[in-house]
Amino acid sequence: MVREIIIIGSGAAGITAASSARRADPDARITVFTEDTDIAYSPCVIPWAVEGAVAWDSVVMRNPEHYAREKRIEVLTQKRVDSVDDSARTVDSAGRIYDYDALVLATGGKVFVPPIKGADKEGVFTVRTLQDGRAIQSYAEGVGSIVVCGAGTIGLEMAMALSRLGKDVTVIEMMDQVIPRIADKDMADPIQAYLEDRGIRFVLNAPVQSVNGDERVCGVTAGGMEYPCGMVIFATGVRANIDIPRQLGLDIGQLGGVIVSPSLQPYKRGRIVPDMYAAGDMIQCMSAAMPGPTMSQLGSSAVRQGAVAGKNAAGGRAMYGPVASPWVSVIGDWEVAGAGLSQGLASWYGADPVCGKAEGFTRARYYPGAKRMTVKVLAGKATHRIMGAQMIAGEGATGRIDWLASAIMSGMTAEDLLVHAENAYCPPTSMVKDVVISAVEDLCGKLK
Amino acid sequence: MVREIIIIGSGAAGITAASSARRADPDARITVFTEDTDIAYSPCVIPWAVEGAVAWDSVVMRNPEHYAREKRIEVLTQKRVDSVDDSARTVDSAGRIYDYDALVLATGGKVFVPPIKGADKEGVFTVRTLQDGRAIQSYAEGVGSIVVCGAGTIGLEMAMALSRLGKDVTVIEMMDQVIPRIADKDMADPIQAYLEDRGIRFVLNAPVQSVNGDERVCGVTAGGMEYPCGMVIFATGVRANIDIPRQLGLDIGQLGGVIVSPSLQPYKRGRIVPDMYAAGDMIQCMSAAMPGPTMSQLGSSAVRQGAVAGKNAAGGRAMYGPVASPWVSVIGDWEVAGAGLSQGLASWYGADPVCGKAEGFTRARYYPGAKRMTVKVLAGKATHRIMGAQMIAGEGATGRIDWLASAIMSGMTAEDLLVHAENAYCPPTSMVKDVVISAVEDLCGKLK
Repeated sequence: MVREIIIIGSGAAGITAASSARRADPDARITVFTEDTDIAYSPCVIPWAVEGAVAWDSVVMRNPEHYAREKRIEVLTQKRVDSVDDSARTVDSAGRIYDYDALVLATGGKVFVPPIKGADKEGVFTVRTLQDGRAIQSYAEGVGSIVVCGAGTIGLEMAMALSRLGKDVTVIEMMDQVIPRIADKDMADPIQAYLEDRGIRFVLNAPVQSVNGDERVCGVTAGGMEYPCGMVIFATGVRANIDIPRQLGLDIGQLGGVIVSPSLQPYKRGRIVPDMYAAGDMIQCMSAAMPGPTMSQLGSSAVRQGAVAGKNAAGGRAMYGPVASPWVSVIGDWEVAGAGLSQGLASWYGADPVCGKAEGFTRARYYPGAKRMTVKVLAGKATHRIMGAQMIAGEGATGRIDWLASAIMSGMTAEDLLVHAENAYCPPTSMVKDVVISAVEDLCGKLK
Repeated sequence: MVREIIIIGSGAAGITAASSARRADPDARITVFTEDTDIAYSPCVIPWAVEGAVAWDSVVMRNPEHYAREKRIEVLTQKRVDSVDDSARTVDSAGRIYDYDALVLATGGKVFVPPIKGADKEGVFTVRTLQDGRAIQSYAEGVGSIVVCGAGTIGLEMAMALSRLGKDVTVIEMMDQVIPRIADKDMADPIQAYLEDRGIRFVLNAPVQSVNGDERVCGVTAGGMEYPCGMVIFATGVRANIDIPRQLGLDIGQLGGVIVSPSLQPYKRGRIVPDMYAAGDMIQCMSAAMPGPTMSQLGSSAVRQGAVAGKNAAGGRAMYGPVASPWVSVIGDWEVAGAGLSQGLASWYGADPVCGKAEGFTRARYYPGAKRMTVKVLAGKATHRIMGAQMIAGEGATGRIDWLASAIMSGMTAEDLLVHAENAYCPPTSMVKDVVISAVEDLCGKLK
């Protein structure tokens, strides 16, 4: 009997699940349903495509024909799944019923837009699909002033992109800092200052109250003030898309995502649902930084989760463990990165973190092109275990934050990490003692 | 009583030991003896200073006055220590006797030059001190063809620098590949091809037999052939400088370095020598990649060792554990990096390594400026423990190799590492699945 595997969603999680299922079962019939028109692209690229650094066409590397030809995976685009019947093991798409032996839910996230007046006006955009990105680029052509609501990484990347296009940009944020929650104020403030130097205005501590205008946007009211603009972009976060899980009665966690087992199977009233898997922005997973759930809504997490869900849907036995969720965002000349918990979030969880911090350079101090690098590492006061890390660097943040993420995930204490950390050195690529190691040294000193 | 600490050597190990001793004991009298004229510089920078990318003056960041003023450390330059008396606890420099309570040996390495005819001719150079570097730069001005003996990282970096100065460069190597021992042929060959494309000639499998000419060099004979040239640079490795240890009768290990305890104290016939420490290129340490000794002759290792030796000399209790010795070399457009054992060396030690390998990019495939990256990771067939890693990348090798070095040092298996590895993703800085993770996946597949 040929196994019928159905995957709902064609983002990083869904497409990876399909490829992973194919590797695990060469004979299965694999079908991907997606409402999107483009598949297998990274929405993270939208700011760079909007500013013109990357061509829209180059971003979509693979189309349904590729998957059909190379992997015998059928991808049905613009095809919505209306409902799932987990007893009959069927999905319903526009009245047509498809049987499955294993189902992977990978319906991703929905952009959260605050429920305010005027959020549906012409000139209001969100940042999720390539179509959103293209629409933003095209609409921005006729607009001088743009308000970006939300100063998270996507908001700041969009602000930077639009500023490079010559737009007058104002960023409105309800918290008292940029990159709230995942970065601490001492790490975020220099990024805000950098963007302010480039002419981007920030309005902090200001919840957005309304989008104003007749049919088209003419301004935003936030914190009691009006900010005139011709266009509004909401980058106010992503919530798990749980339409189908709700319809199925799957257990939803306290962070709003589908609760899954380490095999990435969802639950219904505490019992695992057979032959069903979930991956990507819609699920909750376990944090490696503290005992508790987290949402790891990152493309890289979706890929890892999709690989596990797809393999298991094809009869495999893969597991997905606790995560440190390393992230990196490029904001003009700076790479900002983090993993695990920020100091603010760790304190909120009652973890009483101790912080080490160091500043230095990405190359030998005297080497041409050396850029500044600041690293912050935190550990639990009682456990000494590494709970989080943040970094601002002119270059080279990626591998370094992955290094620290690995320390969090393997449960190292600060002292373990110091013993197990050495850095490669060459004047054009690093200091003789890397800033990461200096930050861990500082942390160990403070833990004494 | 004020503690008298004497440090012999002003390289990365010696100078770090002095600073570390000062931090541990604010009152000690700390004196550094050095034969060098410049102190506290990184010899790794010489190739870039020779080619003119870095000014010689910028390289020496601190002089003896700085140490006297800022840290109350007396640095005596061009001052050779002739002998040490460990019973009387004295050192003799030009007939003057200095008492010590604690002594740190940090006399570094000596460039190894094969014992061949003509190696003392005018126009023959080694690459160790800034004076060597300045002399090479100045002599090269009047020369068209240069032979570099030794295709290790320093040899290749020098070849590249001289090629950029418009010189006709031939590299002669006795092994059958460039970067022998620490890199495998499959990783080294692309670097050789890259340098050949730039016009650098390679003569492999050719031991150098003689340097020819009257007073001045006019050629090198290697593997039975003569290669005419006006200048010869020996980059044929560094041996531990053990003049003083030999005079003292300290135990020397099978790799030619001083055997030390984890507190970095040397031994005499198996017994620790009290109040004496050793650090830097002159010592043997333990490998984290296999149970056995290794020479970690890297600036970054010297800094870590110096910190331990200096602290202990001041009465502290620091330890230096097994090392993975991550290294990185920049050769034109490529960063070449490694940690732990190469496949060749691991096999030579009888470890039967299994290799995983992956190719990809340093940024999203479509992102402008994306450069190729190849990662190789090896693990013991029986233990599955990560034993080594190598990388060639257009950018971003440093943090990634440090990440893998940490996995080696903490004793992770390939499967551990896969569970504990996530990567940060942003199109300008990484692929959605980093090449490091793909290589570890490949390795885990092969270990099954």
